[in-house]
Amino acid sequence: MTRFTKICSLMLFGSVSLMAQSKKAVVASASPLDKKVDALIAGMTLEEKVGQMTEVTLDVVSKTGAPTHQLDVFKLKEAIEKYHVGSILNVSGTAYTREHWHDVIVSIQAEAAKDRLKIPVIYGIDAIHGVTYTVGSTLFPHEIAMAATFNKDLAYKAGEITAYETRASYIPWNYSPVLDLGKNALWPRIYETFGEDPYVVKTMGASIIKGYQGNDIGDKYHVAACMKHYLGYSAPLSGKDRTPAWIPDRYMREYFLPSFAEAVKAGAKTLMINSGEINGIPVHSSKYLLTDVLRGELKFDGIAVTDWRDIQYLYTRHHVASSQKEAVMIAVNAGVDMSMVPYEYTFFDYLVQLVHEGKVPMWRVNQAVHRILKVKYELGLFDRPVGNPDDYPKFGSEEFRASSVQAAREAITLLKNNNNVLPLKKGVRVLVTGPTANTMRSLNGGWSYTWQGDVSDKFAADKNTILEAIQKKVGNDNVTYQEGSKFDTLTNVEETIKAAKKSDVIVLCLGELSYTENVGNIDDLNLPDAQIQLATELAKTGKPVILVLAEGRPRIMTKADNLSAATVMTYLSGNEGGDALADILFGDVNPSGRLPITYPRYANALVNYYRKNLENGNSDDSHGYNPLYEFGYGLSYTTFRYGNVHLNNPDLKDGQTLKISVDVTNSGQREGKESVLLFISQLYASVSPDTKRLRGFDKISLKPGETKTVSFNITPADLAFINDESKSVTEPGEFKIQLGDQTQSFNYVSAKPVAARTGKL
Amino acid sequence: MTRFTKICSLMLFGSVSLMAQSKKAVVASASPLDKKVDALIAGMTLEEKVGQMTEVTLDVVSKTGAPTHQLDVFKLKEAIEKYHVGSILNVSGTAYTREHWHDVIVSIQAEAAKDRLKIPVIYGIDAIHGVTYTVGSTLFPHEIAMAATFNKDLAYKAGEITAYETRASYIPWNYSPVLDLGKNALWPRIYETFGEDPYVVKTMGASIIKGYQGNDIGDKYHVAACMKHYLGYSAPLSGKDRTPAWIPDRYMREYFLPSFAEAVKAGAKTLMINSGEINGIPVHSSKYLLTDVLRGELKFDGIAVTDWRDIQYLYTRHHVASSQKEAVMIAVNAGVDMSMVPYEYTFFDYLVQLVHEGKVPMWRVNQAVHRILKVKYELGLFDRPVGNPDDYPKFGSEEFRASSVQAAREAITLLKNNNNVLPLKKGVRVLVTGPTANTMRSLNGGWSYTWQGDVSDKFAADKNTILEAIQKKVGNDNVTYQEGSKFDTLTNVEETIKAAKKSDVIVLCLGELSYTENVGNIDDLNLPDAQIQLATELAKTGKPVILVLAEGRPRIMTKADNLSAATVMTYLSGNEGGDALADILFGDVNPSGRLPITYPRYANALVNYYRKNLENGNSDDSHGYNPLYEFGYGLSYTTFRYGNVHLNNPDLKDGQTLKISVDVTNSGQREGKESVLLFISQLYASVSPDTKRLRGFDKISLKPGETKTVSFNITPADLAFINDESKSVTEPGEFKIQLGDQTQSFNYVSAKPVAARTGKL
Repeated sequence: MTRFTKICSLMLFGSVSLMAQSKKAVVASASPLDKKVDALIAGMTLEEKVGQMTEVTLDVVSKTGAPTHQLDVFKLKEAIEKYHVGSILNVSGTAYTREHWHDVIVSIQAEAAKDRLKIPVIYGIDAIHGVTYTVGSTLFPHEIAMAATFNKDLAYKAGEITAYETRASYIPWNYSPVLDLGKNALWPRIYETFGEDPYVVKTMGASIIKGYQGNDIGDKYHVAACMKHYLGYSAPLSGKDRTPAWIPDRYMREYFLPSFAEAVKAGAKTLMINSGEINGIPVHSSKYLLTDVLRGELKFDGIAVTDWRDIQYLYTRHHVASSQKEAVMIAVNAGVDMSMVPYEYTFFDYLVQLVHEGKVPMWRVNQAVHRILKVKYELGLFDRPVGNPDDYPKFGSEEFRASSVQAAREAITLLKNNNNVLPLKKGVRVLVTGPTANTMRSLNGGWSYTWQGDVSDKFAADKNTILEAIQKKVGNDNVTYQEGSKFDTLTNVEETIKAAKKSDVIVLCLGELSYTENVGNIDDLNLPDAQIQLATELAKTGKPVILVLAEGRPRIMTKADNLSAATVMTYLSGNEGGDALADILFGDVNPSGRLPITYPRYANALVNYYRKNLENGNSDDSHGYNPLYEFGYGLSYTTFRYGNVHLNNPDLKDGQTLKISVDVTNSGQREGKESVLLFISQLYASVSPDTKRLRGFDKISLKPGETKTVSFNITPADLAFINDESKSVTEPGEFKIQLGDQTQSFNYVSAKPVAARTGKL
Repeated sequence: MTRFTKICSLMLFGSVSLMAQSKKAVVASASPLDKKVDALIAGMTLEEKVGQMTEVTLDVVSKTGAPTHQLDVFKLKEAIEKYHVGSILNVSGTAYTREHWHDVIVSIQAEAAKDRLKIPVIYGIDAIHGVTYTVGSTLFPHEIAMAATFNKDLAYKAGEITAYETRASYIPWNYSPVLDLGKNALWPRIYETFGEDPYVVKTMGASIIKGYQGNDIGDKYHVAACMKHYLGYSAPLSGKDRTPAWIPDRYMREYFLPSFAEAVKAGAKTLMINSGEINGIPVHSSKYLLTDVLRGELKFDGIAVTDWRDIQYLYTRHHVASSQKEAVMIAVNAGVDMSMVPYEYTFFDYLVQLVHEGKVPMWRVNQAVHRILKVKYELGLFDRPVGNPDDYPKFGSEEFRASSVQAAREAITLLKNNNNVLPLKKGVRVLVTGPTANTMRSLNGGWSYTWQGDVSDKFAADKNTILEAIQKKVGNDNVTYQEGSKFDTLTNVEETIKAAKKSDVIVLCLGELSYTENVGNIDDLNLPDAQIQLATELAKTGKPVILVLAEGRPRIMTKADNLSAATVMTYLSGNEGGDALADILFGDVNPSGRLPITYPRYANALVNYYRKNLENGNSDDSHGYNPLYEFGYGLSYTTFRYGNVHLNNPDLKDGQTLKISVDVTNSGQREGKESVLLFISQLYASVSPDTKRLRGFDKISLKPGETKTVSFNITPADLAFINDESKSVTEPGEFKIQLGDQTQSFNYVSAKPVAARTGKL
């Protein structure tokens, strides 16, 4: 008996419980639609079923070497007729017009309609911040910037508009949102996350999912969301994309799972799996995460699709399978429903063989196909495989643009404003300089028109870079531009210094060029020396430096910040980011963004705000928690005063709700928006408590002198943590509330037994 | 019922199994000594028992404000008479003469002899690299440098000499060795470890323990070792000392536990507990680690002592206890035997109360006291509480010094030697410069005469700094010295450049000043800018730069290394490090050290050599594993050729041993030592396999032209890893051997069943 067959027989043994689970699921969900799906499955051949589980990239059915994209009718016929391919996803090519998308989808669905069962293909796309790959679409700020708005209505709106424009591109399935926790500042996908806080990620994530899916994903303006990347993708030890993570089960549940649990509750229809490995187990091979937790605990019943090539990587990267065929067996038995293969059909061939050999049970295939077909029905693809071009008059409209403008305005975060140097008067002479000053790539980042976002200056030529927006705002006469530096090397520093001396103020734009996924891996979080040098040289002129950051993650720029008069973080604020920044710099908009992530001071001092107590009791240790700017930080052109924190009860008891309210007053001279953040700390617990955790937020607008009362309702469950039995519990004891500069305490009192303390890892 | 009492009653419930365990242990180990200990315990009051579990610092029984150390007889009387204190440990003062140590220990034991039961006090000290706190002792290279020798006989010898000199200081208990895995280059205690490899740590650790303990810790030349810091101390997420770690159980067992398991097998008598928290559980509160794993699995039956104040920190730092008293209850019930309190007697008072209240069971106290008294008997303290001054003629002798010299010579690692610029001719004009050139602090590091090692230049005034050693080697006339730079700021660069221009070669000494524990925390692994600037300026002279590193951890110095003609790593090579370096630079000794740790290239690219496969399958990713120098790297002045790898069998089967041999030839012109490292990789496994793992090493000496055959015996257990059930298993399949540049494959074939794959975290 070889190792391979031993594993197989063990997996079949293990599958008994899965089968039971599966049967139960079918019984519990025997809706008319489920019955319809089961009836369809009953008539399908094994090959037709496995085809549904197979997803290839558009490249596979396209002509190679054509100057512009063209489908290859023979390859398309092969895909549908021979392999019964159930899904196609986007290429890593460039953006297409709506008209071209129409042609592509019409052709694919026409071919599918020729197949025996006429099952429509589900086309999936990364519409990450608006519909990335369609010319003229509305591009929003990336998730990290959406989180900075602390305005969940804006996330909902962005989701709704993106869904509309995705359907306007004839595509019903969006690989968004990213629900990964942006914990590690090095990770190149930080900008795709809603930041480092679990509550923000789950709240904003659920909002955008509701925007994507509406009340019915079958209507012509909504799509199926895809929550990703399940689970623990965002915390690789090395900070490099798709490299191993160490995450104990307790913290997986404490920090990473809540956003997915919330998304399942919000009705997310599909899920994409983390390409990485956790504690040596690639998630694509983990029955524990893909079946026990995802299906058993979270009760998710939608599609679980792999990420790019990830079944193959079980063999070639992770080495937990000793062949491609074994990789297919492991992944499908663990709970994968659809393989983003994406270049060829070995997955199809191996899975058919494995079912014939009894190494993957038919019930597992049926279960996967059931989930896939159900979503296809729910999306209305059987009735309406291609949308009607005339149904989408608002595509790329001014109305939609206004939402993106508002999001960018509420995202951009004022971190420093010495002596109220901002807002600038419109008559001042401005030098605009730095590598991010005049490119749309540093506003849109990756996933913009192409995978790497490298052609934003072409496709968004009608949008304003920071330089163009400032010129538009105050006129060309008052604005000088010098490059100063590229991202890594100084260019015309001397001319730039000369220009600075002739100006009243310097808008110095530093940060990053666009990148996506592993291409954005870095070995040093410090901004390149050249950018810091440019800041240093310009500061020497004595002219006030307005440091503007346009970047996907918080690159270390402490030396530049120390020299600036003001510092403004724009994140990746999208096509309208330049204009929104100009609005803020010149006072037409009052900034209200807050950091959704800790801005670290040093490259090897990367600690999230919800740290444990790091004090060691020795007064000589200044290396505990000392970020440049803390999570939740952000200034306004007005000031806000907090007071009158009120609790409806001094104690919180089981079954009760604690109502916490605070009065917030605009104590300054102009109208402004304020994000009110509720932090709560448990003082003592059986697992060392986080120093504080965000348990609620709300955004309000106040006129000068106006006061509003903001309320939060907190139940015992809202204060829970994961104990050493991996259970979510709330332990009795004292809690401290923090709202602005106000603090207040209360006790949670419970008659429930406290679990024994064992110290399990 | 309050939370506190609920926890108490649950802990008592939990203690039933512990009691059973305890009873079993007594039955199993009812040796004559155990019976003697039990008889003594039977006559002890609760207060006398709790006193044995109490350890205070020497400060507590010393006069405050005295110009030199003096015991305070009243305080000493209080400690013994009132609190029955069982142990005293060293202060953070300075080094004493042997004579003063004699006075101190005589006074303490005399006081103890006045107590009713006349139980001697056990005095403990950090004799970390030789007996740190005794004037004139033999200081060895630190553990990181001992590991670089890859010579376990040297570790044994260092242990033996240190034990002799510790006993010569009348002290029987040494808080050494550190068995923590040096995984995180930022951690300020890296230099106290045997490096990043689990096999090196366990092998060198067991050797030094055997040296410390000999065959009988009761003889006058051996001491009780203290393996530390159990468990998982060395991998804080932030890199800062005593800050939280995330370590899944599987990796705790795979990487961190083996050195402790091996040390228990080697007979280590005592253990110190990790001050940190793992996954939110402070180890001092973890019954799982302190009892289930340590006692149940590892079968350790010696003393488990806390680290400094760590029971108090359960309340004040970790917040898992809501009072000091609760902290005592949690820690003692979890399995702590002795509390390094160390400043006062609240531990004593609370523990007495807790036993009276039934919250800590008497059997737990008896168990702890049994372990403590047994070690006191084994150390011979009852018969001979103070050693005889005349028994230690070799203290600080030339014979002992020679062992330290040899260790330093075999540790120092040649990393680069362009065009064989080394060894230098003795007639060349040498500029010696840089912040580590002329201080013993950068050779001895911390734990040298004082905690922070800040007075090494005073106490080791008769030892040679790098500068002095070079002057001694080649005469003052050929050597010029300029400081060039302090650690953080440039000083006399212009003079240094002038001096460089007049020299034939520049010996540029960079690195770190001494530090210990949290005082050595850093926020950026890069060497300070000033040191890199000095290297840059000196390289511009065109004179060859010999870059010498004297540092406790691998600080990033890539830019300096890129400019050097040769690079030599000295680690912290102790009192003889300067001379050993001069021997190597001028060719009197052929270097043979190898890096026991990865030398990273960039500050945010910290990956150990036993990484998982990091390739993502995209050719555009150069951020995988690209250190400046890999683990195991090190050059010689001769060359070695590997060949003729031979296996006694193509397959390894259960119950068999695979004998792997290789011929190593000195293919160069001079005699040299070579560390032969055996790496083995498993190609595929159910948990993603490490790319390679060290499974054996041996150090040989070869004359020019000479060939030796080096053999290793490998059993299936040597190839085991921790699977997803947290079990140590060897899975069948293909393995690859790497010996120098030679590779070879074999198969492990087994009839044992392979566990089911679940993907548990």
